[in-house]
Amino acid sequence: MDKIFYNGLIKTMDKAYPYVEAVAVQDGIILHLGKYEDIVRYRTDDTEMVDLEGNFMYPGFIDTHLHTVEINRNRKLLDLRHARSFEEALRLVKERSEQMDAEGNDGWLVSIGFNENDWSDKKEIPSRLDLDSVCSNKPCCLQRVCGHTVTYNTKALELCGCMDEKPGETKRNMDFFPDGTPQGQMYENDGWTFLHYMPVPSVEEFKECFRLETKEYAKLGLVAVHSGDINQISPVKDNANIMQAYQEAAEEGLITTRLYVLCRVEQPDLLREFVKKYPMGTTFGPDKKVKLVCVKELMDGSLGAHSGFMRGGYLNDPDAANVSTHTDEEINELVDIANEAGYPVCAHCIGDAAVDQLLNAFEYAQHKHPRADLRNGVIHCQIMGFDELERMQRDGILAYVQPVFIRADAAIVDDCVGVEIGKQSYNWRKMWDLGLHVSSGSDCPIESNDPLNNIYYAVTRDGGNGKPWNPECAMTMEEAIASFTIEAAYAAYEEQRRGSISAGKYADFTVLDRNLMEIDPWTIRDTKVVMTVIDGKIAYRAGREE
Amino acid sequence: MDKIFYNGLIKTMDKAYPYVEAVAVQDGIILHLGKYEDIVRYRTDDTEMVDLEGNFMYPGFIDTHLHTVEINRNRKLLDLRHARSFEEALRLVKERSEQMDAEGNDGWLVSIGFNENDWSDKKEIPSRLDLDSVCSNKPCCLQRVCGHTVTYNTKALELCGCMDEKPGETKRNMDFFPDGTPQGQMYENDGWTFLHYMPVPSVEEFKECFRLETKEYAKLGLVAVHSGDINQISPVKDNANIMQAYQEAAEEGLITTRLYVLCRVEQPDLLREFVKKYPMGTTFGPDKKVKLVCVKELMDGSLGAHSGFMRGGYLNDPDAANVSTHTDEEINELVDIANEAGYPVCAHCIGDAAVDQLLNAFEYAQHKHPRADLRNGVIHCQIMGFDELERMQRDGILAYVQPVFIRADAAIVDDCVGVEIGKQSYNWRKMWDLGLHVSSGSDCPIESNDPLNNIYYAVTRDGGNGKPWNPECAMTMEEAIASFTIEAAYAAYEEQRRGSISAGKYADFTVLDRNLMEIDPWTIRDTKVVMTVIDGKIAYRAGREE
Repeated sequence: MDKIFYNGLIKTMDKAYPYVEAVAVQDGIILHLGKYEDIVRYRTDDTEMVDLEGNFMYPGFIDTHLHTVEINRNRKLLDLRHARSFEEALRLVKERSEQMDAEGNDGWLVSIGFNENDWSDKKEIPSRLDLDSVCSNKPCCLQRVCGHTVTYNTKALELCGCMDEKPGETKRNMDFFPDGTPQGQMYENDGWTFLHYMPVPSVEEFKECFRLETKEYAKLGLVAVHSGDINQISPVKDNANIMQAYQEAAEEGLITTRLYVLCRVEQPDLLREFVKKYPMGTTFGPDKKVKLVCVKELMDGSLGAHSGFMRGGYLNDPDAANVSTHTDEEINELVDIANEAGYPVCAHCIGDAAVDQLLNAFEYAQHKHPRADLRNGVIHCQIMGFDELERMQRDGILAYVQPVFIRADAAIVDDCVGVEIGKQSYNWRKMWDLGLHVSSGSDCPIESNDPLNNIYYAVTRDGGNGKPWNPECAMTMEEAIASFTIEAAYAAYEEQRRGSISAGKYADFTVLDRNLMEIDPWTIRDTKVVMTVIDGKIAYRAGREE
Repeated sequence: MDKIFYNGLIKTMDKAYPYVEAVAVQDGIILHLGKYEDIVRYRTDDTEMVDLEGNFMYPGFIDTHLHTVEINRNRKLLDLRHARSFEEALRLVKERSEQMDAEGNDGWLVSIGFNENDWSDKKEIPSRLDLDSVCSNKPCCLQRVCGHTVTYNTKALELCGCMDEKPGETKRNMDFFPDGTPQGQMYENDGWTFLHYMPVPSVEEFKECFRLETKEYAKLGLVAVHSGDINQISPVKDNANIMQAYQEAAEEGLITTRLYVLCRVEQPDLLREFVKKYPMGTTFGPDKKVKLVCVKELMDGSLGAHSGFMRGGYLNDPDAANVSTHTDEEINELVDIANEAGYPVCAHCIGDAAVDQLLNAFEYAQHKHPRADLRNGVIHCQIMGFDELERMQRDGILAYVQPVFIRADAAIVDDCVGVEIGKQSYNWRKMWDLGLHVSSGSDCPIESNDPLNNIYYAVTRDGGNGKPWNPECAMTMEEAIASFTIEAAYAAYEEQRRGSISAGKYADFTVLDRNLMEIDPWTIRDTKVVMTVIDGKIAYRAGREE
């Protein structure tokens, strides 16, 4: 036997034996588990006895929504997350611009993370003129924390061919000053125009990103993540480099935490080509560390940027565009292409109108080409009606939620849609009660991908101010753990092999220094990751980092 | 929408919605289910509204152990099941022999179904001389109801080259008279010597068998069966005909109830060849009506014939041979070959010593070539210790039980092994409490394959005399239904697509005229099958047969 894990409380998430004392692992697979005295019999001369030292072992945690390439890219971009005023944000842009000048770098100055709601002096998104006042000699753009709104300086707008656009004539989703010139802000696909001017990372850059970030994930106790990367930072360019990088990184053993890849392809012809070239479930590497698990689509924007697609619009912003990213025909066609090829579709939906449109598309595709065991899903599930949750139950649609989102959103939901709809929104309790498959993710880099932080929001419903927001919508701790383990494995078609500590499953474990089932939920974030085990290998051990 | 099933109580076995009012099906797949008012919206001009007429719909029932080819063959053999005396049995043999003479048929006279324990005058297995007294001019043999003991007349023994065997010298498993001549009885593989003289059915005969029998299954409410047929009636001959028949029958649409095939191959070289030629999970036909799901092995005989392999032997028969069908090395090698190729092994075990040997073989193979999600199983699980059930829990081994077996066995278990072991045996309660995967089958033609009859024994523990035997070992009704639905699908690696009434699963339904959850369990057998639906097609409807 390769390893025996013992001397800890082991919570399996398997009804056959909710708790066991020891687990015997060989070649990455759990062969026996149960009482210590029964398992220690399998000890041989070459068995490594892994002493859990009284700690608590869980099935390995899996984050079902984040963006690895963006997390990595953002390490190099100006981060305005911590700016506390309009003035401070502009000053930080100015400093970075001057630094680039000193380095002789006249490329783009791109920043991320700003949230005007956090600013003390002025809760306004900077205009192109504001940006010009601190950086006019190079193209500059500031991406809002949600990612869905981007504000550009004049130089950048010129470079993108946007300065000649006119209100009422333009096909772009952008704002104008009263004088008819662009104000600088652009939204959704148009907001991401700057991406077309970013260089596509090389194969080596992608590989280094996967190597570094998956090692970081393991430190957080994550054994796998569902990662939306394809076409995520370069929507119109080809995906040859990233696909080659997945393959090479997996084959060369560079990947620590498993990557379940969301494949974002939003044009019918490209999608047809993609699903033919890469069939659903394609894996890379001898350990299958990379697996393609769904097609990702985007239905609308973000709540904070008022670009969600709402049945009733924004109560506090009647002029918000309130549109979908796709026409019904477009999304119907995309879902049908993916589903017919055996790919589930998981789509970003913030508003209830976007959810309606997506559920209609799922129905359209299933009526046209019925297919068994398709795990279509709604990512985010934010503003929703109970009627939509019940429709998801009737149709077998998965819910991908981000509990940590209420940190920022709790303060604005009721203003946007009212108390009545607010109580049906972010309502994880109702999802579990309906028996939906509910998994949890972080949408990192939008929010932190620390799973303990995320579980904290799932069970406490901390509205970002230390007070519970609609606490009757919380998950239980058991459900929160399930949403990061067995349900997250289910969402990757892996529940037969992973997601619980069961005989015959792969040995993916997260070891913590506290018993989540017994501690005060409000103190969850004090819990430390002791060890992360992936395929039976110790991928991280606190205090023993390289 | 092709069909909407409505106007009945629909028990789904899916935690998302334990009961629903209506189910919408297209192309054989459940697309929507829930309240009638929500589902009827999917009605289109060409929708067939299937009125359940107030009846009760369940996921389609699946029998996880029977023998289709033997069921079919037995239709043509002399059936001694209903003989109530030694004298009556011999008289029936005489009549059949005379009938064959009249037809000019000098082939084998083979009978099945006798059980000496049912006989009023003499509870003894007939000897060759007894048989000679009623049939001496042609080879004749009587197979005991369990199948594991066969008694031959002199002509048959001569034909098989057995009349020259001597006690103490023979390698055959057979009995002798005090004068040193064969008594006529032979056991296990030697008992089945006659099979070598039976003609292998032609492809057309096998196809007709599958056509006829799977149609009969549907009348019983069975949507699928796990069927042990390969090499079952002709152990040493090649399996070309049956494999071709599976393929052609499936392709030509002759199969009604799905066949999950247990592949019995008991020689290492042949098994290596088989698993290479037919990989695990091979399906035949456009609807995949035939699927290979496991390798079947045989570890011992039967309880009634005192040929089970027992830790403590037979209390009431200290001279019983008490041997295994395989050496440790043989079964280890067979399991390793199958498991390494991805095939689970399910093996017939009656006695606790046989179970020990099999569990050791599972452990041997998993230690040598660890493999995830292997669903090795123990078929029958009759005489067992709790230690073995707990070992199955630790190692993730499936239990295939036949509740109906207690009809005949309850009367003899305590005599064979004592009360103490008897209470640990046939103990389905303990299996469920340990969280084992428990599925139910009939071993038909050994016992009736009516699933309602089988469920009756599972929940009432009727010991064959109308009185409950060790009633504390019963399944609940919920468990009994699970053992015929979701757990039976699990045993075929089909739980993601079948086994419950869930959105995205295939529409396999069994409709009954009564609510199993509310009726007196002792009256279950009065329940009638109203309809059987397979892949959304009505395969059987009471009163509307062809």
